[in-house]
Amino acid sequence: MYGLEPVFDALKTAQARLALENRHAKDAALKAVMSAIDASRSAIRKANEADIAKARKEGMKEALIDRLSLDKPGIDAILEGIATVIRQEDPIGRVTAGWTLPNGLLVERRTVPLGVAAIIYESRPNVTVDAFSLAYKAGCAILLRGSSSALESNRVLVRAIQQGLETGGGIPEAVALADSGNRDEVDAILGARGKIDLVIPRGGKELIRRVVSQARIPVIETGAGNCHIYVEPSADLSKAVDIIENAKTQKPGACNAAETLLVHRDAAGSLLPLLARRLAGKVELRCDEPSKAALGTPPPGLVLKDATQEDWETEFLDYILAIKTVDTLEEAIDWINRYGTKHSEAILTNDLRAAETFNRRVDAACVYTNASTRFTDGGVFGFGAELGISTQKFHARGPMGLEALTTIQYRIAGSGHIRL
Amino acid sequence: MYGLEPVFDALKTAQARLALENRHAKDAALKAVMSAIDASRSAIRKANEADIAKARKEGMKEALIDRLSLDKPGIDAILEGIATVIRQEDPIGRVTAGWTLPNGLLVERRTVPLGVAAIIYESRPNVTVDAFSLAYKAGCAILLRGSSSALESNRVLVRAIQQGLETGGGIPEAVALADSGNRDEVDAILGARGKIDLVIPRGGKELIRRVVSQARIPVIETGAGNCHIYVEPSADLSKAVDIIENAKTQKPGACNAAETLLVHRDAAGSLLPLLARRLAGKVELRCDEPSKAALGTPPPGLVLKDATQEDWETEFLDYILAIKTVDTLEEAIDWINRYGTKHSEAILTNDLRAAETFNRRVDAACVYTNASTRFTDGGVFGFGAELGISTQKFHARGPMGLEALTTIQYRIAGSGHIRL
Repeated sequence: MYGLEPVFDALKTAQARLALENRHAKDAALKAVMSAIDASRSAIRKANEADIAKARKEGMKEALIDRLSLDKPGIDAILEGIATVIRQEDPIGRVTAGWTLPNGLLVERRTVPLGVAAIIYESRPNVTVDAFSLAYKAGCAILLRGSSSALESNRVLVRAIQQGLETGGGIPEAVALADSGNRDEVDAILGARGKIDLVIPRGGKELIRRVVSQARIPVIETGAGNCHIYVEPSADLSKAVDIIENAKTQKPGACNAAETLLVHRDAAGSLLPLLARRLAGKVELRCDEPSKAALGTPPPGLVLKDATQEDWETEFLDYILAIKTVDTLEEAIDWINRYGTKHSEAILTNDLRAAETFNRRVDAACVYTNASTRFTDGGVFGFGAELGISTQKFHARGPMGLEALTTIQYRIAGSGHIRL
Repeated sequence: MYGLEPVFDALKTAQARLALENRHAKDAALKAVMSAIDASRSAIRKANEADIAKARKEGMKEALIDRLSLDKPGIDAILEGIATVIRQEDPIGRVTAGWTLPNGLLVERRTVPLGVAAIIYESRPNVTVDAFSLAYKAGCAILLRGSSSALESNRVLVRAIQQGLETGGGIPEAVALADSGNRDEVDAILGARGKIDLVIPRGGKELIRRVVSQARIPVIETGAGNCHIYVEPSADLSKAVDIIENAKTQKPGACNAAETLLVHRDAAGSLLPLLARRLAGKVELRCDEPSKAALGTPPPGLVLKDATQEDWETEFLDYILAIKTVDTLEEAIDWINRYGTKHSEAILTNDLRAAETFNRRVDAACVYTNASTRFTDGGVFGFGAELGISTQKFHARGPMGLEALTTIQYRIAGSGHIRL
């Protein structure tokens, strides 16, 4: 099993100890981790530059190099992420319900740590620290399996984390990096029933598909975001253009970027020409027939194509927007529930009933009214760091902060109670 | 796919409608289901007698026949289960958190139905109605896959449910019985990604093992209960004997029955002779060496054996109790965390620190102080019916009522907000 069995056991033992730590102890350890990372800035930069040089040599695209890069603001952001996690309430030991049975037994439901988590992720080394800090605060041990392209960066970061935990009175064994680079390591993680309580894949489609189909332990699917914006006739058109531009172009590679615009036929003629002018030269539009007609003469610089079936199903993660005209709100909702990935969906409207219907009928983690889909983000929601954005409905949904790493336990106190 | 695809699609469509029903409508439909079941008593009894006759003919054990049987008190209990579910608050549409972001965006977290659930269960026809009523109240459609031995009973029950929904203005398509009896039907359910949001196996070890290892959809493991009682030296011995007897004999076939007694060496000499006298003629004891020595001369009628490694690992579900003497509280806790199934574990003590340590360190859904483990039960906890008792930590833990069938959705309301 590629040497991971002892790692699993060490994590489990460490987690049992970490589960008993109070907030003061956990926060003190996290503060020491901040200091250790701050003190390791030059080593981190050096390791990251080595990773980047190797990646460039192997022909990695610049967009991915960008994700891999950990510059000064990147390290600052990592530290701020830990600071935000420190400021969060302890998610553990909360009594979330409690009642007394007719026979006098006291039942309390408390939050407890989920256990040992594993995260399998690509490129971004900031995930290393984000995932660790959330897990530690939630009393969970964590196994980090980063990509081989970020190996040196991750090694230095994990060393700094462990040094920080050591000096801060924490439990350094509660974090481990799976760094053999061997793909079979992933198989070992996915098969670790009874050893690992949760695995989170964070990365491209292929990684997520592999994890979901192979895992014999609980998985939280993340990331896939085929997000829609639906413009209803009563919408403020000028705000609609701003929102669509923002949702498409502010960070097109993000999972919460919009991919398809649905526009009501009564709004298409007024909206689409405005939108085409705004996006010309920046975003390629792929329209169905009615949308193309409503758009009229394309402004200079606009790349305009006919939409294909594949376009409706694709998360472009690029400067491409598919556009479809719909006849009714119902058609828009049905379309979203069919092609969407249950991530983030928006309606732009001034009609209260339309907004409420959209909110109630769209099956997605985040449903927006008159706002850009780009806000689906643990940081924006105030969770500090995030483990990822869950697109499943089981256990966790939407941006995952501390709560996703907890479970419950019932404590029942009696005085000799027997069942009659 | 054994004809289940259209059933999956119909359930999904019905669920989308059911998700929009308010509590009044759902409760009215459930009341009509109660009336329909009440009016079908003779048909239910007749079908159940046919199932029993067939099972006897095929040589089913009387204990299992007992689980299959649906007599008048059984039907009364089913009706009372629905009534309790009706009395529960609607788990859907609760705003469980809400806040305003610095930019003015309002974020609300609401409970929404999980979607389409499936339950694969053995014998007990009461599960048919319990699972349906919980699912309906939680806005979930449900696919019922009962055992072939209860087929006629289940058919009549589901017909009554659907008639009740029809007359009560409900959505009869939100419930379906998979009744081909074909084992491949189970494969189709376990592979229904995107169609079924959750599958709950409820039955024997073999069923649960099969579902867990084959499912490509989320599973909640239920039932396995290798439960322990640990007796600490400060415990009230007379209450301890009552509790152990109750936890072992009140319903030995239940998953919350105790299987192994752990006794501190300083309590063994006083407890075990008392306990042996109480259990002689009723319960077979399987002791380790120190326990046998502490027990002294066996009282008349006591069946006493040496415990084997297998005994520690076995959920007897029978009048058998394994007994082990431990040197410390720590040893007891480690033993439980190793051999227990994270179901229900009890400490009997008068020492506050021992109770607190046991509570905090034992990794189980339900941890008891000075009470029988037999109370782990959705009905006892006040959930009305139960879907089963989850022994996993993911999504749901312990007795599963309405909450296990919900998930969350974030609704974000803006007025033209874009991300900067």
